[in-house]
Amino acid sequence: MNSLSSQQLKVCFSPQLIKSYADENSIIMVIDVLRATSAICTALHHGAEKVIPVVDVRVARDYLNKGYIVGAERNGEIVEGFEYGNSPLAFVGDHVAGKTIVLTTSNGTFALAAAQMAHQVIIGSFLNLDTVSEWVKNQKRDIVLLCAGWKQRFNMEDTLFAGAVVSKLRAANTGLSLSDSSIAAEILYAKAKDNMFDFLENTSHRNRLRSMNIEEDVRYCLIPNTTTVIPMLKDGNIVKMER
Amino acid sequence: MNSLSSQQLKVCFSPQLIKSYADENSIIMVIDVLRATSAICTALHHGAEKVIPVVDVRVARDYLNKGYIVGAERNGEIVEGFEYGNSPLAFVGDHVAGKTIVLTTSNGTFALAAAQMAHQVIIGSFLNLDTVSEWVKNQKRDIVLLCAGWKQRFNMEDTLFAGAVVSKLRAANTGLSLSDSSIAAEILYAKAKDNMFDFLENTSHRNRLRSMNIEEDVRYCLIPNTTTVIPMLKDGNIVKMER
Repeated sequence: MNSLSSQQLKVCFSPQLIKSYADENSIIMVIDVLRATSAICTALHHGAEKVIPVVDVRVARDYLNKGYIVGAERNGEIVEGFEYGNSPLAFVGDHVAGKTIVLTTSNGTFALAAAQMAHQVIIGSFLNLDTVSEWVKNQKRDIVLLCAGWKQRFNMEDTLFAGAVVSKLRAANTGLSLSDSSIAAEILYAKAKDNMFDFLENTSHRNRLRSMNIEEDVRYCLIPNTTTVIPMLKDGNIVKMER
Repeated sequence: MNSLSSQQLKVCFSPQLIKSYADENSIIMVIDVLRATSAICTALHHGAEKVIPVVDVRVARDYLNKGYIVGAERNGEIVEGFEYGNSPLAFVGDHVAGKTIVLTTSNGTFALAAAQMAHQVIIGSFLNLDTVSEWVKNQKRDIVLLCAGWKQRFNMEDTLFAGAVVSKLRAANTGLSLSDSSIAAEILYAKAKDNMFDFLENTSHRNRLRSMNIEEDVRYCLIPNTTTVIPMLKDGNIVKMER
């Protein structure tokens, strides 16, 4: 961020576009509300020591064979041979405390890989909405909210979360410079916020979400502020930010 | 489009993402409301025989030296040495009748190049909104509304136009299958439609539009249905569709 200009807040709707929005000076918040970043917040909240994001299922299988707790999801389903997918509910409980979790997902881990060039990478979900928004507000760098989307395409649920962050930051900082995408995300969030579940039911990948039979997951992932952890990327792993 | 499924209507927010939305069976509508696709509609409406879109300014200069009418724009400005940029107002009048126009612009011609693999490529702007919407409605193929955006990034003005098309098609066809991006575009259009000029003033690339001093152009480009031409890509040139 140029010291003479205001802080920029940009929403990027696809990992494929990240280089048009962010550079090595940016802070990137990776967003995959359904369900990778909700799962990561949940695992660290329940005491997991770290989450290792891997892009390749074969690498995930190697970890599985070594006895790690591994979540592996493709196309919304648990990959054959794995106990867990990307459902955050799988990481609720004492069984993750002190453990290393390995995670590979269709969109979330790809987005994390795309974000790696940034100055800092943090993880956002409705579960830690207020905490990540407050932290971001106090940074002196440009912020890019990176929506994992669905197979490089725009998706609604990640956009709504980005809009929630825009809304919070804009309420707190009148000098913020917003991209068109940030303005759009905030408008969409304002439209949806009073009943996000129904809004997504009636809009977002309706068939995809229904066919996955993940209503319980979706409801869990839309509850704001159930944790104050901020997951961050450090040396390729995701750990809890010490504050 | 699979004959068993409904017609899909997808909005693509960046030319860089086009392969995630369209294939060789799709119809792509290229949208660069400010100002390339408005200029193209205007030129053909005023009798230009064709518009040759070129990506490279040097190629445009070769045409200029051969005596063609050439529009060349980069970063919102007329490129040095050219008489015209991408202002549609430059193509209003008898001087374009029967002529070939050559056009190179920052975003619009790039979007056209990205769209070339499609079954058919047409050009949309508010100027021909009802006509292109009506034509698209009667096609039996999936439709992708490709927003040229701004340097691969989402922009508001192209999204509003895409939302206007979604709104018209949805009113006419209850079986339409909408992408999340189409739903988002329609919501944004509904929010903006009663006063698009003010909406864009207060949102879209505010500083960019103001600094270009193109208020007259913007007002012209937002007037719906001033022409019934449908520009289409044919053998690399843009010509008026015969209907």
